Amino acid sequence: MERTKISELPERIGEKVRISGWLETIRNQKTMQFLIIKDGTGSVQAVHYKPSDPELAAAISSLTCNSALTIHGTIVENKAVKAGGLEIQIGELEILNLAKGQLPFSGDASQPIRLDWRFIDLWSEQNQTIFKIQTFAEQAMREFWQQEGFIEIHSPKLMSSASESAAELFKLDYFGSGAFLAQSPQFFKQMAMAARFGKIFEVGDVFRADPSFTSHHATEFTSIDMEISFIKSHEDVMDLEERWLNYVIGRIAEVYGKTIRELFQTEVTVPTIPFPRITMEKAQRLLKSLGHVPSADTKPGDIDRESEKILSEWTKKEYGHEFVFVTEYPASIRPFYHMRLAENPEITKSFDLLWKGLEVTTGAQREHRPEILRRQIAEKGLSAEALKWYVDFFEYGCPPHGGLGFGLARMMMLLLGFKNIKDVTYLFRGPNRLSP
Amino acid sequence: MERTKISELPERIGEKVRISGWLETIRNQKTMQFLIIKDGTGSVQAVHYKPSDPELAAAISSLTCNSALTIHGTIVENKAVKAGGLEIQIGELEILNLAKGQLPFSGDASQPIRLDWRFIDLWSEQNQTIFKIQTFAEQAMREFWQQEGFIEIHSPKLMSSASESAAELFKLDYFGSGAFLAQSPQFFKQMAMAARFGKIFEVGDVFRADPSFTSHHATEFTSIDMEISFIKSHEDVMDLEERWLNYVIGRIAEVYGKTIRELFQTEVTVPTIPFPRITMEKAQRLLKSLGHVPSADTKPGDIDRESEKILSEWTKKEYGHEFVFVTEYPASIRPFYHMRLAENPEITKSFDLLWKGLEVTTGAQREHRPEILRRQIAEKGLSAEALKWYVDFFEYGCPPHGGLGFGLARMMMLLLGFKNIKDVTYLFRGPNRLSP
Repeated sequence: MERTKISELPERIGEKVRISGWLETIRNQKTMQFLIIKDGTGSVQAVHYKPSDPELAAAISSLTCNSALTIHGTIVENKAVKAGGLEIQIGELEILNLAKGQLPFSGDASQPIRLDWRFIDLWSEQNQTIFKIQTFAEQAMREFWQQEGFIEIHSPKLMSSASESAAELFKLDYFGSGAFLAQSPQFFKQMAMAARFGKIFEVGDVFRADPSFTSHHATEFTSIDMEISFIKSHEDVMDLEERWLNYVIGRIAEVYGKTIRELFQTEVTVPTIPFPRITMEKAQRLLKSLGHVPSADTKPGDIDRESEKILSEWTKKEYGHEFVFVTEYPASIRPFYHMRLAENPEITKSFDLLWKGLEVTTGAQREHRPEILRRQIAEKGLSAEALKWYVDFFEYGCPPHGGLGFGLARMMMLLLGFKNIKDVTYLFRGPNRLSP
Repeated sequence: MERTKISELPERIGEKVRISGWLETIRNQKTMQFLIIKDGTGSVQAVHYKPSDPELAAAISSLTCNSALTIHGTIVENKAVKAGGLEIQIGELEILNLAKGQLPFSGDASQPIRLDWRFIDLWSEQNQTIFKIQTFAEQAMREFWQQEGFIEIHSPKLMSSASESAAELFKLDYFGSGAFLAQSPQFFKQMAMAARFGKIFEVGDVFRADPSFTSHHATEFTSIDMEISFIKSHEDVMDLEERWLNYVIGRIAEVYGKTIRELFQTEVTVPTIPFPRITMEKAQRLLKSLGHVPSADTKPGDIDRESEKILSEWTKKEYGHEFVFVTEYPASIRPFYHMRLAENPEITKSFDLLWKGLEVTTGAQREHRPEILRRQIAEKGLSAEALKWYVDFFEYGCPPHGGLGFGLARMMMLLLGFKNIKDVTYLFRGPNRLSP
């Protein structure tokens, strides 16, 4: 017999069905046994009149909560049952997996303990819903890319040389030579532009070996990347990102807006186009005028975490917008491959995107002119020899291009109003966490 | 001015447009200059009458083939032009990136040289089309998963213990302790079943440290994985896989069948359901009856590469089918987590899928009963302690489940009739290749 989802039972009153799921609670009375079964689509009460089948009654009595089971039975109306006004009269029981009687942690356990037992932690309705929404969010992203003719790439995560600072890279032995784990698909998505792919996206894992312990960093995370050719400036990249976010968040609001409001107490606001944009120079002046003194370890020309929050608050007040692009970062704090302004080589054609007070994207027009790239490599003290293979990409007619990256977990965290990416990551990886 | 795609030029006759692309060829005559420009959507002739603008004429003369450029000009009808019966009269030229005059390899270069310069190798129409079809194939897969309510997961590639033999694993230092790179998402997709996700898929990179030099192995590749709960046996997993392949190949045939026939000389055959299935025992008897002697290094109870080819040929002749499931592999050559037949613990509830003579999938029902899992771990000589965290998944009501994996590159190779996965991989990684 085909399995019936619990959500479909109201259409099956009077019929024999097979349901499979997990035992939520059990009440063993003198003559009656009451079970609540969940299957991810809903829950249902299952009943058994003990004297009618003592052997079945004994099997039911042996059950522990959370056990996986299949019940064959008849659906009957019962107005007294709160959940759905129906119940299933148990005809036959298959115990698929008898759970240990005691869960390894209690409801108020700390996050580290819950992450140790992540597979149990994920049982909650909130956690199940996070990954349904994430699945849908990625589907919405792909609808956008498909409509716009993007090509999907899967770039290798094992590489022979560092794309930026080797300090942030995991190193491993690769058949006798050394390899790095990619900290971003940067070089390889640019290669797609040299390969004349035009517009590409990638959804893939990246790895960061720097020991970050903030609420919004992970050692391994899913990075969403885009790169497009024949742009005029980084403005084209920002135009792309805001159209993409407008579409993706729009689709999420449409399908999951109500769920997110009810289950996560968070309003999904579809961002209007264009997003506010502010140059770094103006942002610095604004922060100063608001009396903000950057933290001592802030690099000259950069903004600190607190500044990101202040800028987002200001944008919210000034423009009613959750997003703000901070543009034209100083070259001193940007990688060598960011293009500089023609009129001022101290300033890059780059941007960060802030959302609700947190940086979610770094993007830029890339430098595609080999002679200028070589100069910028030298200026940053990097090895021309180690990067020759990369500079080669630009020697054979690679068009002007740019792109951006967006961490999937940061998106989910901000979308659903969480404070920590651990809450929205399937299995978090950090300096102190490599298992399960 | 908005960029116009070359494919759209026939609708713009008489109008001023801006096109961007690459210089394919140039003919510099006494008074006329003729350029062929490609942009990925088509090619067009661009013309300039030298005396009308000597400065422009000089700029055009300086061009090298493959340079990236933008042309502003007027589209005029010209019946004499083979490609499209139109041309663009150049008004203005922007040289975006002047290519080196000479490509680093010639048309008949060997594959290693072409892979060294993969970004140029990818310019060909065939190669561009491979990645368009791959993008579409993945989209079709997702249509299927979406219709069936699958959840997407992104499992970590950094893990603390080996899922199978540690010999195949890359090892690295992880903040002072040791980590492995996942050779498959096996444990983590099973965790999703323990987490009550029901049906999941993952598209992600996996890593294999064994030095394989065949035409169908890679050190890093994109693995497509599925796992489903509440199955009755491995037959349910095969049912899933054949419905999935029927849908995906059906969509590809619909949209790209003609292109694949013309450009790759390969017919896309939509596989009918059900796929032929043959037990390993019957396959062995069949191979013997066909006079095949397995190669000396074949493990007892297994089949060799040649056998896979013979079985596929036999299935093609007998059933007119490109696919065949070989089922019920001996436990001796399967991992510890494959479930065994209730009536014969020497035999697993597992399968391989062969397509056109090559293994493309290993799948199975998994053992979800902790006490049997522990016995099988001991039997394989693995460490109960190192795998405790994994066995824990099954202590709290994890339902019966099973799944499969499919390498993306193998799919593309067989679909398009290539002999080597290097031909269909964006950037191949093998024991001798870590760059670019």
